[in-house]
Amino acid sequence: MEERRTPPRAHTLPETIQLAHGTGGRLTHQLIEQLFLEYFRNPYLEGMNDQAILPGEGGRLAMSTDAFVVKPYRFPGGNIGDLAVNGTVNDLVVGGATPLYLSASFILEEGLPVRDLVEVVESMAAASAVAGVQVVTGDTKVVERGSADGLYITTSGIGRIPEGIDWGPHRIREGDVVILSGSVGDHGASVMIERFEMEFDTQIESDTACLRDLVEAVRDVPGIRCMRDPTRGGLATTLNELSQSSGLNLRIRERDVPIRDEVRGLCEALGIDPLYVANEGKLVCVVAPEEAEEVVRRMRRVKEGREARIIGEVTGELPGLASLETLLGAVRVLDLLAVEQLPRIC
Amino acid sequence: MEERRTPPRAHTLPETIQLAHGTGGRLTHQLIEQLFLEYFRNPYLEGMNDQAILPGEGGRLAMSTDAFVVKPYRFPGGNIGDLAVNGTVNDLVVGGATPLYLSASFILEEGLPVRDLVEVVESMAAASAVAGVQVVTGDTKVVERGSADGLYITTSGIGRIPEGIDWGPHRIREGDVVILSGSVGDHGASVMIERFEMEFDTQIESDTACLRDLVEAVRDVPGIRCMRDPTRGGLATTLNELSQSSGLNLRIRERDVPIRDEVRGLCEALGIDPLYVANEGKLVCVVAPEEAEEVVRRMRRVKEGREARIIGEVTGELPGLASLETLLGAVRVLDLLAVEQLPRIC
Repeated sequence: MEERRTPPRAHTLPETIQLAHGTGGRLTHQLIEQLFLEYFRNPYLEGMNDQAILPGEGGRLAMSTDAFVVKPYRFPGGNIGDLAVNGTVNDLVVGGATPLYLSASFILEEGLPVRDLVEVVESMAAASAVAGVQVVTGDTKVVERGSADGLYITTSGIGRIPEGIDWGPHRIREGDVVILSGSVGDHGASVMIERFEMEFDTQIESDTACLRDLVEAVRDVPGIRCMRDPTRGGLATTLNELSQSSGLNLRIRERDVPIRDEVRGLCEALGIDPLYVANEGKLVCVVAPEEAEEVVRRMRRVKEGREARIIGEVTGELPGLASLETLLGAVRVLDLLAVEQLPRIC
Repeated sequence: MEERRTPPRAHTLPETIQLAHGTGGRLTHQLIEQLFLEYFRNPYLEGMNDQAILPGEGGRLAMSTDAFVVKPYRFPGGNIGDLAVNGTVNDLVVGGATPLYLSASFILEEGLPVRDLVEVVESMAAASAVAGVQVVTGDTKVVERGSADGLYITTSGIGRIPEGIDWGPHRIREGDVVILSGSVGDHGASVMIERFEMEFDTQIESDTACLRDLVEAVRDVPGIRCMRDPTRGGLATTLNELSQSSGLNLRIRERDVPIRDEVRGLCEALGIDPLYVANEGKLVCVVAPEEAEEVVRRMRRVKEGREARIIGEVTGELPGLASLETLLGAVRVLDLLAVEQLPRIC
């Protein structure tokens, strides 16, 4: 009887949950593949995208969910509230969906100052208005002092996918072009400074933003293959996932990836690779080569895409792996992180 | 500037979050009305039901979400996993929807035994199969040891509402009949025994169950006005909400409400009113009087409704209040609980 309870692959999981199970890296993937996929297996979940694409009588629906546990829950440029709205909205829009409805579920710690909750809810309302979505249902639970860390929020979202849109890693082809909408690492850096109460001359603001306008500006370009927002685990983790799912090699050039000097300085001081630091308002877009310039042009017209540029290509050289051409011309594989770099960044 | 950040009504909230904000009682309602509704106001949320009913091109959709923080996360008869699936599925089906898709979001505490997580996920998969839903998307976050209590799960669900179904407190009329599907307090009692490690001769099992079959057995009865699953806050809180929303008086008879002897004994020992203790597999149904017997008959044919019975009526006597005719014939108002009776029951 006991044997039936654990499917074969779950036996290879470690004995206890570690912080690295939550960072989007190697252990997160192991947990998803060996536990959640084993038990919940269905074609929607197997897509392993940030949103599920569901059949519907009046057109396809997209569904997405994220839990937010960022510490601290306020940071320069935002708080857990706009993060919770933008995060789920962005997971919908990068799947090609028009976001419509959100649910919001709060786990509050006893003793949380109500003015902080008000501030968070106000940010959620403002972010929802920008994204054009409505929070239509919710839930609130309270746990004893010490059983949470201020507040955690889970949002889920529903969107509608227009006819003709079929984006995903399965569409990626050799020769495609990789476009990035702007500088990387801003969100993670802003949270780090706030968390460690670091003295830092220049303030780094989170890039938390809604990607709806940016995606809609290019949504009708037929050469769009796939979009992702490189959040937890940063640009490198997203490129890794797309390489693995497509079975191809997404290769970027270090010199073309914009990183703010302040972010670079902070990462150097902490010994962290900015390519693995979280963003909350950036877009990675894989596009057919003949339409890449048009996509960049359109993206640059939108506020969130002003720094958009081509950062690399899709090759057949290292199948299933992402790689980086360094400033010195060497090629480095961008693997999934095996150890914890920065927990609770979103 | 500071003044603009807090809308007028939020000023009447207390300074900090208390455990009672999470129990479905008076403070939960205050938080919803004075904070969440103020900021997120829209017609779907204003319905104040456990699910939002949304327009869709191919028919109406229902959306629901719940966070689960039950302590301990295992108890006789179930665990946080089947609770998380059944809870959200039931919120969809009591709105008349056929449940289709779930999202599942996990907040895990560092150090959680993986075998416990496997057991929980296995229960979720089993409960999903029974309910006929698929878990199509999810998220996992991990927080440091001491920043959560084992694991918290938020599920969200989407269902489709068949044409012709329009259930809700707005349909309730004077003279309608109140039907209850079975005994009350089982879930809350089972969690209490487990939490306080009480020595108790008889084991009380949670009633956690999927209400889909039960609801579908009566869904085409035209006289159905409104359904609810009386979870957090128990039967009394549900009756109170329906009375308030309809502006009428739902009056039940104490002698007709089934309570197991073991549950009654435990509640007496703890000084708790079983009418306020949570259920996780019970149904309250308000029905036109001429169809009440038919509904009871149909419910009794389903396993989850074997003890279904008429427990009261809708009157115009105490507008907006629920009431109880006691064993001695007195009438007692069933108010919302003002203080915490039992936190973290679901």
